[in-house]
Amino acid sequence: MDNNTILRLLQEVADGQRSPSEALSSLEHLPYEDLGFAKIDHHRQLRKGYPETIFCQNKTPEQVVAITRHMYEKKSNVLGTRCPPEIMTAVCKAFPEAKHHTLARAFTITHAAPPLSKGTIAVVCAGTSDLPVAEEAAITCEALGNRIDRITDVGVAGIHRLLDQQDKLNTANVIICCAGMEGALPSVLAGLVHCPVIAVPTSVGYGASFGGLAALLGMLNTCATGVTVVNIDNGFGAASAASTINRMAGTSS
Amino acid sequence: MDNNTILRLLQEVADGQRSPSEALSSLEHLPYEDLGFAKIDHHRQLRKGYPETIFCQNKTPEQVVAITRHMYEKKSNVLGTRCPPEIMTAVCKAFPEAKHHTLARAFTITHAAPPLSKGTIAVVCAGTSDLPVAEEAAITCEALGNRIDRITDVGVAGIHRLLDQQDKLNTANVIICCAGMEGALPSVLAGLVHCPVIAVPTSVGYGASFGGLAALLGMLNTCATGVTVVNIDNGFGAASAASTINRMAGTSS
Amino acid sequence: MDNNTILRLLQEVADGQRSPSEALSSLEHLPYEDLGFAKIDHHRQLRKGYPETIFCQNKTPEQVVAITRHMYEKKSNVLGTRCPPEIMTAVCKAFPEAKHHTLARAFTITHAAPPLSKGTIAVVCAGTSDLPVAEEAAITCEALGNRIDRITDVGVAGIHRLLDQQDKLNTANVIICCAGMEGALPSVLAGLVHCPVIAVPTSVGYGASFGGLAALLGMLNTCATGVTVVNIDNGFGAASAASTINRMAGTSS
Amino acid sequence: MDNNTILRLLQEVADGQRSPSEALSSLEHLPYEDLGFAKIDHHRQLRKGYPETIFCQNKTPEQVVAITRHMYEKKSNVLGTRCPPEIMTAVCKAFPEAKHHTLARAFTITHAAPPLSKGTIAVVCAGTSDLPVAEEAAITCEALGNRIDRITDVGVAGIHRLLDQQDKLNTANVIICCAGMEGALPSVLAGLVHCPVIAVPTSVGYGASFGGLAALLGMLNTCATGVTVVNIDNGFGAASAASTINRMAGTSS
Amino acid sequence: MDNNTILRLLQEVADGQRSPSEALSSLEHLPYEDLGFAKIDHHRQLRKGYPETIFCQNKTPEQVVAITRHMYEKKSNVLGTRCPPEIMTAVCKAFPEAKHHTLARAFTITHAAPPLSKGTIAVVCAGTSDLPVAEEAAITCEALGNRIDRITDVGVAGIHRLLDQQDKLNTANVIICCAGMEGALPSVLAGLVHCPVIAVPTSVGYGASFGGLAALLGMLNTCATGVTVVNIDNGFGAASAASTINRMAGTSS
Amino acid sequence: MDNNTILRLLQEVADGQRSPSEALSSLEHLPYEDLGFAKIDHHRQLRKGYPETIFCQNKTPEQVVAITRHMYEKKSNVLGTRCPPEIMTAVCKAFPEAKHHTLARAFTITHAAPPLSKGTIAVVCAGTSDLPVAEEAAITCEALGNRIDRITDVGVAGIHRLLDQQDKLNTANVIICCAGMEGALPSVLAGLVHCPVIAVPTSVGYGASFGGLAALLGMLNTCATGVTVVNIDNGFGAASAASTINRMAGTSS
Amino acid sequence: MDNNTILRLLQEVADGQRSPSEALSSLEHLPYEDLGFAKIDHHRQLRKGYPETIFCQNKTPEQVVAITRHMYEKKSNVLGTRCPPEIMTAVCKAFPEAKHHTLARAFTITHAAPPLSKGTIAVVCAGTSDLPVAEEAAITCEALGNRIDRITDVGVAGIHRLLDQQDKLNTANVIICCAGMEGALPSVLAGLVHCPVIAVPTSVGYGASFGGLAALLGMLNTCATGVTVVNIDNGFGAASAASTINRMAGTSS
Amino acid sequence: MDNNTILRLLQEVADGQRSPSEALSSLEHLPYEDLGFAKIDHHRQLRKGYPETIFCQNKTPEQVVAITRHMYEKKSNVLGTRCPPEIMTAVCKAFPEAKHHTLARAFTITHAAPPLSKGTIAVVCAGTSDLPVAEEAAITCEALGNRIDRITDVGVAGIHRLLDQQDKLNTANVIICCAGMEGALPSVLAGLVHCPVIAVPTSVGYGASFGGLAALLGMLNTCATGVTVVNIDNGFGAASAASTINRMAGTSS
Repeated sequence: MDNNTILRLLQEVADGQRSPSEALSSLEHLPYEDLGFAKIDHHRQLRKGYPETIFCQNKTPEQVVAITRHMYEKKSNVLGTRCPPEIMTAVCKAFPEAKHHTLARAFTITHAAPPLSKGTIAVVCAGTSDLPVAEEAAITCEALGNRIDRITDVGVAGIHRLLDQQDKLNTANVIICCAGMEGALPSVLAGLVHCPVIAVPTSVGYGASFGGLAALLGMLNTCATGVTVVNIDNGFGAASAASTINRMAGTSS
Repeated sequence: MDNNTILRLLQEVADGQRSPSEALSSLEHLPYEDLGFAKIDHHRQLRKGYPETIFCQNKTPEQVVAITRHMYEKKSNVLGTRCPPEIMTAVCKAFPEAKHHTLARAFTITHAAPPLSKGTIAVVCAGTSDLPVAEEAAITCEALGNRIDRITDVGVAGIHRLLDQQDKLNTANVIICCAGMEGALPSVLAGLVHCPVIAVPTSVGYGASFGGLAALLGMLNTCATGVTVVNIDNGFGAASAASTINRMAGTSS
Repeated sequence: MDNNTILRLLQEVADGQRSPSEALSSLEHLPYEDLGFAKIDHHRQLRKGYPETIFCQNKTPEQVVAITRHMYEKKSNVLGTRCPPEIMTAVCKAFPEAKHHTLARAFTITHAAPPLSKGTIAVVCAGTSDLPVAEEAAITCEALGNRIDRITDVGVAGIHRLLDQQDKLNTANVIICCAGMEGALPSVLAGLVHCPVIAVPTSVGYGASFGGLAALLGMLNTCATGVTVVNIDNGFGAASAASTINRMAGTSS
Repeated sequence: MDNNTILRLLQEVADGQRSPSEALSSLEHLPYEDLGFAKIDHHRQLRKGYPETIFCQNKTPEQVVAITRHMYEKKSNVLGTRCPPEIMTAVCKAFPEAKHHTLARAFTITHAAPPLSKGTIAVVCAGTSDLPVAEEAAITCEALGNRIDRITDVGVAGIHRLLDQQDKLNTANVIICCAGMEGALPSVLAGLVHCPVIAVPTSVGYGASFGGLAALLGMLNTCATGVTVVNIDNGFGAASAASTINRMAGTSS
Repeated sequence: MDNNTILRLLQEVADGQRSPSEALSSLEHLPYEDLGFAKIDHHRQLRKGYPETIFCQNKTPEQVVAITRHMYEKKSNVLGTRCPPEIMTAVCKAFPEAKHHTLARAFTITHAAPPLSKGTIAVVCAGTSDLPVAEEAAITCEALGNRIDRITDVGVAGIHRLLDQQDKLNTANVIICCAGMEGALPSVLAGLVHCPVIAVPTSVGYGASFGGLAALLGMLNTCATGVTVVNIDNGFGAASAASTINRMAGTSS
Repeated sequence: MDNNTILRLLQEVADGQRSPSEALSSLEHLPYEDLGFAKIDHHRQLRKGYPETIFCQNKTPEQVVAITRHMYEKKSNVLGTRCPPEIMTAVCKAFPEAKHHTLARAFTITHAAPPLSKGTIAVVCAGTSDLPVAEEAAITCEALGNRIDRITDVGVAGIHRLLDQQDKLNTANVIICCAGMEGALPSVLAGLVHCPVIAVPTSVGYGASFGGLAALLGMLNTCATGVTVVNIDNGFGAASAASTINRMAGTSS
Repeated sequence: MDNNTILRLLQEVADGQRSPSEALSSLEHLPYEDLGFAKIDHHRQLRKGYPETIFCQNKTPEQVVAITRHMYEKKSNVLGTRCPPEIMTAVCKAFPEAKHHTLARAFTITHAAPPLSKGTIAVVCAGTSDLPVAEEAAITCEALGNRIDRITDVGVAGIHRLLDQQDKLNTANVIICCAGMEGALPSVLAGLVHCPVIAVPTSVGYGASFGGLAALLGMLNTCATGVTVVNIDNGFGAASAASTINRMAGTSS
Repeated sequence: MDNNTILRLLQEVADGQRSPSEALSSLEHLPYEDLGFAKIDHHRQLRKGYPETIFCQNKTPEQVVAITRHMYEKKSNVLGTRCPPEIMTAVCKAFPEAKHHTLARAFTITHAAPPLSKGTIAVVCAGTSDLPVAEEAAITCEALGNRIDRITDVGVAGIHRLLDQQDKLNTANVIICCAGMEGALPSVLAGLVHCPVIAVPTSVGYGASFGGLAALLGMLNTCATGVTVVNIDNGFGAASAASTINRMAGTSS
């Protein structure tokens, strides 16, 4: 779908030949731009409500800079995740306004702040080692227009630390809960709150944690209700889902 | 916490010694009844918004009937899942008003219909063999006060069948998506909609499906955003989480 | 080592040619009786402090009755575990004084009550479905001369149920903690107590519980200290280890 | 089988003592050359239709250069795959006419272009990160005498990108489809086309992708017909099989 | 798409408003019939070249009979696979002309023989125990209009048995190769022939065969070229792919 | 290769046209008989030293009886393993001289006792539950012409029971060692003897034994030298290998 | 809970308003200090009997030094485990009194020696390669106030080396047994002693040891009684549990 | 057992108080030397027929040199396996007469050539990449006093390469067969020979080879008889077992 096509479509809307909702539907399903090695989906923002994120791992610095540039020139906000240091350096050099989030291994470029959802997403993590995943979730939530509340180091072996946070937990619209090792935190947490809990297993652990498998299986087998799970270390995925849910309560005007 | 205790607590509220929100908080965390072999949590309805469900698998008919009776006498609505035929028979004999949902392997006893959430939950399944899991999800959603929309047999190998349902999909507040074998449906589905998608891998398949493991891994590794996952065949868990999300848009008055 | 040999050994003790501790050491390492298909270790009671238990699964009723008879005739106390109904029937017919523990799938024959350890072992389980494993542990503890305290249905999704039991938990010398599904209970429990916790993963669950693997991995990866783990469903093994520990605080005179 | 033997065999053909087809059959099953550390199969080109490829991984630069030299001196076309940079450097130094395919991690040396098959093989990949595997497949297809058509970045989460390519897909004789993460693309693709689809799971992903296992299992469990699967990241294997199939429609004269 | 729609479409073709190829394309992507529990895809024969097969496992006899009846009334040929005895009985009673293939656990109903492809598909199996899978493949090939050649019991431990069959193997257009245990047959076979080999791991074996996993991994890791793999025991899938390939050489007129 | 062919071959030997060793080589690689569903290898006795064994599992009683009859009529000795009761009954009815080995789940038909090897094979097992596998090994050893020595119930938790058998162990030429659960016996055993030890993991155990996987991995990772391993429960395979080794010391004349 | 709160609590004890045991209970469950990235639990020493250990792996040197400093300033004894060289250097520079245990990859800072338990813990290891894990256990035991006895290189393939140590083994109150590869040592050991055995699988091995999985499964499936297991390479966890048990026999006054 | 003890023992032999065989038995089970971190078993040569090998992986250069020195001073022959370059350098510097086997990653120090067994061990490998494992096996065989015959690069995809080697194979007493990827070579090989085959899976491969797991499972599930298996990449273990078997045919005088 080239620009002429879009123009014609919009003209039809102007002429009353198409309703705006019909036009939106058309726009949602068609346009993308072909870079040769990657199709960038500029209208994703229309269709899913946020820009396509760049998953930097396994890409070259040149590829990431090129994709970023195309999005940048379209005035899209950009979020890069799983960004190794050498890519981070290349991006920051090419785009001085890029913001580097070290712990989260992410960068953001913001043209215009997204509309802010009314509710709050709590990002909870069990231990200090889970922080990189929790921060990836937190940065993503913010990039998608959510208020967040960080609750850190409340692992189940010292249950009073979690119980102390109950007030904060009760004010959240959605909770993202990151834990490695045995991954038990979401089960306990979900028993204490009314809102949906998105569990993120992390690869923190050793031996029979098998790279996060133990935590993943633990979370999938939770005896608590209201818990759903994403891939190991997938802070971004948890944040995307949480943001979609949080948006249901409306945005601040 | 016996009745006297609750009375005293409520009296304190009446006397202005405790605020109602304090009293609710107390009620939420304390009371349950001890049957010897199982602690029934009558106040769960207060704390989580719905009654404790009976997971019938691995219980004896006598145990299920006894737990049901205690819940029944407290005027709780009852939902029994994973209910094998011999337990179903025992329950229906003991409680003639119990409704038997054959395909879902579930029973319900309803004293008063729960308040109905405004939105709709779509329950989608990939193939005919996934229906028992999808029905468990559907019955649970209804028992928790949700409108549901069933979309059946829209596996990805005939993608036009799914595309045909796009209007229905776009009206849902949450989508539960059940699929076995390669479990690809949630990835395609989530690319077409704005709302959260809860993916339920089913154990449908053979050989290298390894009892649903292939579908589970597929869903956890989805390239789509907005997807979270529950345990294999866990229609109930998906429905609980979906209902929690759907409630965020309010209930019909 | 036939009877003459033992007699001669004991005579040497009487004559002062061997010290009693030397004789005990000799007795500990040598004698057993050959049934052809199984070597029965009558002196195990000396060496490990309790009689050889009969693991009935995969044995024929005839084999179990024969092994029981030989132990019975030596006036050993007998404990049979994993005993399927047809073996139970055969044993009870052959040994009317055998006590059948249905839920634990075990039988006991007691010639003389074993000396009672001073401390108490708490046998805790997460859900009703974990009871058969917990009961196997409880019956074994009692057969080995321990006082036990049963705490049932205190799964982590309703953490207040566990917190309510803290007094009972604090009086135990050792805790056996049985849980299936995500197996999170030992992590929370061990954070609340001072004593050793022996975690028993159970095969309760479905789908990604993979027959207890999820619970097992969860327990092995516990973030709490003081927890050790036994095989899936191995209530007997947990009880043996717990009894060994409990004996360290001495027996009642 | 030394040269004298082959000469004698061919003389027998010339003399009418053997038919040409008999001689071909003899040639197909016997000759190879022994380098000490590797047997090179010069007649493979006769038997399977293409030269033995050098799988460079785990070989030393010296070994690869030596094997290449022997093939080169026999005027064989040479294809080296899984070629790490240090081997690439050694090969390019020793054989200046070697062509280096960076993204594919491959090199080719071409003495004479192979006969070109009539049909086209489409090489499809789900995401940018799958490109190295797709390129290995594409380079191999070309080395074996096939026209190829590259279709890139058409993952299932944006299904319209794939549907846009339907015309291109419909003209292919065989499709090679590379995808990592959940590996769902072959299932959707195979539902849209008439031709055979060879699915290549890639190791692209993290966490529960387990090095490509999730994609592999997804593809093996496809609900679509006409799909077969090769090993994770095995672009070469997919291309070999695709080329064998494509040859069935004849070569251009 | 109801009948009126199709009529209108065809009328447009008659009127010259649509070219026949456009009409074919429309027909290919749209119509199916909704049975409530299963969408039957009558036009699949147009789109993929053969009728939708009924995978009977996990369906009730009533469901299979109902699906069969709808296909039957449209004059489709019907193929039912993985058909347990009780379903077979129900189908044969309802459709006396159904042909029961015991060893293959399949049934067929043939209204008109499909056009016969020119080439031959060889169905090879390693041992007697692999026969049910090989027969499922053979029956499916025949139902899809292929000549087949059965080669049985040529496992690699007696390599001369396989070498004896080389003439037969050389005349095949495609080879389906079924093997359990170590699954080595496709590797050896593919080294002997020019045509594509589709490997079917079977669940034949015990212990560390892990239900066919050993054979599956063996086949995926084959050192031979030209081999692709389908799911464990998936004779049907192998036959579908083989038939698609075999059709490339044309059909008998 | 029909009888005429063999006759001609032998005539050539008689005429001095072929040396006997050449003729043996020819015989070794060619003859077998085709039953349609199974190729019987009558000359296997020449090539490998013993008749083809019938693995009865997954075969029908009719198939086993038919295979047995063909071997029987050639005067081969017959060994049937993994023989379920219904096949055993059919075989014993058809061949009254068949000997039924209940514990080993095997049958034998002996036309002429095989030549007896000089050495002894010790068949050791860790527990009573390992006996069926040990007996399959023992019966196979005997059928192949070996003296055996059974040593039962010498598991490593009572190491003195094993040390007591050292004299017996030292006289064996080869030891077959069957153990389930942790599979530690071969490691200890191999440290005590000079001869080769063939370890057979058994599927005895529960929970994390994963059907014998724990024992298999234990044996493969043995810290002792001189140990090799066969598949889980593969008593037959261990016996075949042991017999091959034992034959190296010659046979009794 | 800030210092004022603690002061007030203690004043209440002084005033007789609270009993000391009530105050201890309060102290046990509440206080910790928030560092932002980690909650330090200074009162853990009260609740569990020893200070929170710093698991250094996956932390930055800055994080470890900061956590250490806070503990140090509270006069807590400090134990750092899994400490890579760069963290060790940073800690030793910041805290010159830190003691570096190279083989154990641990450091300790001791303000006051802990009370010494009466009994002895034996730390046994199978091979030289298991020493790092065994030393982590030994250093932890000492840091927690236990006498230890090291027994090294007594793998089961030379059983006499273990039997030689029986006197030492018999004097231990608890035994920690570290072994990699097949992990058989705890099974043999537990058959020789009366006391509890805590088994630590190590990741020593290669191939099918799968990073310690073989040893872990072996230990979980032990046929001996009195054995419990911790995570792979978890010397610290074994020591914590062993110390808890050893404390039951009292401390030296 | 100190030197005085050995002297006394030998004196008893000289005096006729003990028979030589009794003395040998005593010597076999007792002596070893304690280095603190490793017990060296100098009498292993007596008990098992060859010196303890040093498995260098995971040891420090200092540890390997120290162990070597102790063995060296006792005039033992020394074999070091899995020797990384930095250890190799340290050993060669300390012991100039050490022979470095690069491909095998091994070193040997020979004081006196071991007695040579009469038979030959064939060391066969499937591909060039399997050579390091095959060479470890070959060097070990030679160090233990065996003649060896190397057969290289005879993978099953070119079966004629293997058939060409049949004469060589038929002269071997034992065959060690190394193969990675699908590990099919031992199955084919064992069908061609009379002697025992010891299969060594190698970690050669990628993707679904899972580090040699595919080859290992393939070999364990072999349909051929006479095959036993060792751990992945365990050339040493295969050689030890093969040498034990080969010794049964006697040594050259």
